[in-house]
Amino acid sequence: MEEKREIFEGEIWVQNDYILYVGDGTDTEKIYGKIPESCILWDREIDCKGNLLMPGFKNAHTHSGMTLLRSFADDLPLDEWLNHQIFPVEAQMTAEDIYELSKLAILEYLTSGITAAFDMYLTPESIADAFDEMGMRCVQVGAVNNFSQSPELVEEMFQKLNHRSPLQSYILGFHAEYTCSKELLEKIAALSHKYQAPVFTHLAETEGEVAGCIERYGMTPMAFLDSLGMFEYGGGGYHCVHMTSEDIAIMKKRGLFAVTNPGSNAKLASGIAPITEFLKAGVPVAIGTDGPASNNCLDMFREMFLVTALAKLKQKDASAVDAMEVLKMATVNGAHSMGLMDADVLTEGKLADIIMIDLKQPNMQPLNHIPKNLVYSGSKQNVIMTMIGGKILYEQGKFFTPDQPEDIYEKANQIINRIRNK
Amino acid sequence: MEEKREIFEGEIWVQNDYILYVGDGTDTEKIYGKIPESCILWDREIDCKGNLLMPGFKNAHTHSGMTLLRSFADDLPLDEWLNHQIFPVEAQMTAEDIYELSKLAILEYLTSGITAAFDMYLTPESIADAFDEMGMRCVQVGAVNNFSQSPELVEEMFQKLNHRSPLQSYILGFHAEYTCSKELLEKIAALSHKYQAPVFTHLAETEGEVAGCIERYGMTPMAFLDSLGMFEYGGGGYHCVHMTSEDIAIMKKRGLFAVTNPGSNAKLASGIAPITEFLKAGVPVAIGTDGPASNNCLDMFREMFLVTALAKLKQKDASAVDAMEVLKMATVNGAHSMGLMDADVLTEGKLADIIMIDLKQPNMQPLNHIPKNLVYSGSKQNVIMTMIGGKILYEQGKFFTPDQPEDIYEKANQIINRIRNK
Repeated sequence: MEEKREIFEGEIWVQNDYILYVGDGTDTEKIYGKIPESCILWDREIDCKGNLLMPGFKNAHTHSGMTLLRSFADDLPLDEWLNHQIFPVEAQMTAEDIYELSKLAILEYLTSGITAAFDMYLTPESIADAFDEMGMRCVQVGAVNNFSQSPELVEEMFQKLNHRSPLQSYILGFHAEYTCSKELLEKIAALSHKYQAPVFTHLAETEGEVAGCIERYGMTPMAFLDSLGMFEYGGGGYHCVHMTSEDIAIMKKRGLFAVTNPGSNAKLASGIAPITEFLKAGVPVAIGTDGPASNNCLDMFREMFLVTALAKLKQKDASAVDAMEVLKMATVNGAHSMGLMDADVLTEGKLADIIMIDLKQPNMQPLNHIPKNLVYSGSKQNVIMTMIGGKILYEQGKFFTPDQPEDIYEKANQIINRIRNK
Repeated sequence: MEEKREIFEGEIWVQNDYILYVGDGTDTEKIYGKIPESCILWDREIDCKGNLLMPGFKNAHTHSGMTLLRSFADDLPLDEWLNHQIFPVEAQMTAEDIYELSKLAILEYLTSGITAAFDMYLTPESIADAFDEMGMRCVQVGAVNNFSQSPELVEEMFQKLNHRSPLQSYILGFHAEYTCSKELLEKIAALSHKYQAPVFTHLAETEGEVAGCIERYGMTPMAFLDSLGMFEYGGGGYHCVHMTSEDIAIMKKRGLFAVTNPGSNAKLASGIAPITEFLKAGVPVAIGTDGPASNNCLDMFREMFLVTALAKLKQKDASAVDAMEVLKMATVNGAHSMGLMDADVLTEGKLADIIMIDLKQPNMQPLNHIPKNLVYSGSKQNVIMTMIGGKILYEQGKFFTPDQPEDIYEKANQIINRIRNK
């Protein structure tokens, strides 16, 4: 994914969390010059057998703990789904529940080659515990709203969780304009100024949300939030489906990321985000799965195909948003949106967040064009290794995590049964 | 998938090509009554460990031999893609090439739980050979057009290939209205009357195709073809994207199937088929991947999600086309469209075309609703066994086919290199 480097045959050396060497093996003296060859102890050498190593995918918007609600309430419009199905169950979920349910999501991320999640959910500390224990990278974002999360809590979490471990960081944020009073929003903007920190939020997901904001404040959500000084230190919006060209100009001016969630937006009939308009305006686009209650899977391959397929449909132009552009969104832009500036590409000094793609499955043959194969015919079935911070957590269908799948599944089923029977 | 039977815990017995018993194991005396227990020799007993057995998916429209052109020419509109990229390469493909390339597609079908393909392509006999040798079910359809396939050839193939083996059948068909002269179309309609046989064709895939037909004949393709008596013995259309309500009424009147190909229609920016209108009118919908040059994968899980997700977007209604409806399209309707009346559901006397779905992967947990899990979060990674006519051809990632993947991949890459270097 480095702009100056094509796909090439070579090798990658990893030391602790980081990449020590990337190359064709002819210039390793630059490493041996610093470390005597006799001092290098190899833990393991992996023959990739002509398969592909690439940066892990960055899931730039998700609600991991919502695994509980996968296939729980589908085929409903967003309003009804959220207020009558999702919120009542969420009200019964404990921090311990969310800790267990986040682990279920982590297993799924690993199978899809996702090495970092930009997670917004209810109990930040138990979420951080789940990711730390499983060994997965997580950037949490505040979810201030009128009901369950205050700006004070978000500030406390920002101080407590940001860089609590090498795997954790925390970004300021709120649920959405329509779930926050103006007073709350002003407090978040003040926090952003106090810490000179970016802010993320759900933004312009549905037509109704935009119409409601215009009714309340005479402005689109983007314009209204910007008028509060919310985005002076950057950040971005999740979804960004119903955006005017003025909204997009504000995003460009403030250096904001548009995080697109095409699977969720389609399944909830919310609409198709204007990806080609973002690209034309120079607004960086990242990709998220959204939560498993609305998607319902956490599969970046399906999302990558949807980003380009829906853009082609929307534009009535089969050349809209090509495969390399999509891969960049799913890796480099995702990492940058989450502030993970050293997890974007595979080069020396960057984090060893690496996945291996099996090119020897039928959907990857013939090898006419590997990036197009990934985006147009790739599947998480092709992910045969997921490494985060130099540690292999998933390989050939097996998990190398402290908790094993069967235990995690059993707990998830116990939780939903407990809540159902209440 | 039987209407009167919910998902249940039980067992399935298979004898030769067929299902001998389905039940909870308490009523097996009805089998032992016919066959003495001592005479039953079990080849193999499989403990499904709580996983799901279901009918294999039926890929109701594909061009298997086009695996060669996967990721070969993407991001182009249909016209340019077909005339300037696809046709020139196809002109250089031999029957032997298509035999090899169909085998590559068959491997991919097996990984996705597809047990039968409704295939339209250039060299019917070599295609039949590939499917027969690999052990996969295939229904071929004629592809009469002005350039490469005559009605005479299609009649010859209809006589030769239909039921050539228990795995093969053949249905009358032509490429599309826009690639056939009126004279050719009349000949196909005459064949249909001669054999009292259904006819299939690409139908109303693009706006341009419909406009062209109206310009030529003053009618939509559906109305024009029907006016020739084309569909008096049934059949159906592939794609069916741009259909008027009058077109849909003709489909209903003639008992036609609408075979939808949402991945291909999105990727080529052709549009979204009116699935909810078909359902409302009582027109049965089946699902196809289309060929790997336009999709680019042969994955029924992606197609199933797209059918409902795109219908929800088109209707602006998150309740459009629910999960069970989609599963029925991908199994029962697919089988019926192909004339495979005994490959639709798992019950006694039906063909043993069975797949096993791993419910113990994270994307299938918790088990809130298995059909919704399949359609909304399922993946071909969940397919851990594909059985066709009582024979297991794919299990736990391994192929039990006479040709092994590495040999098939090598040949596919040799063919594209040969054609490229010409």
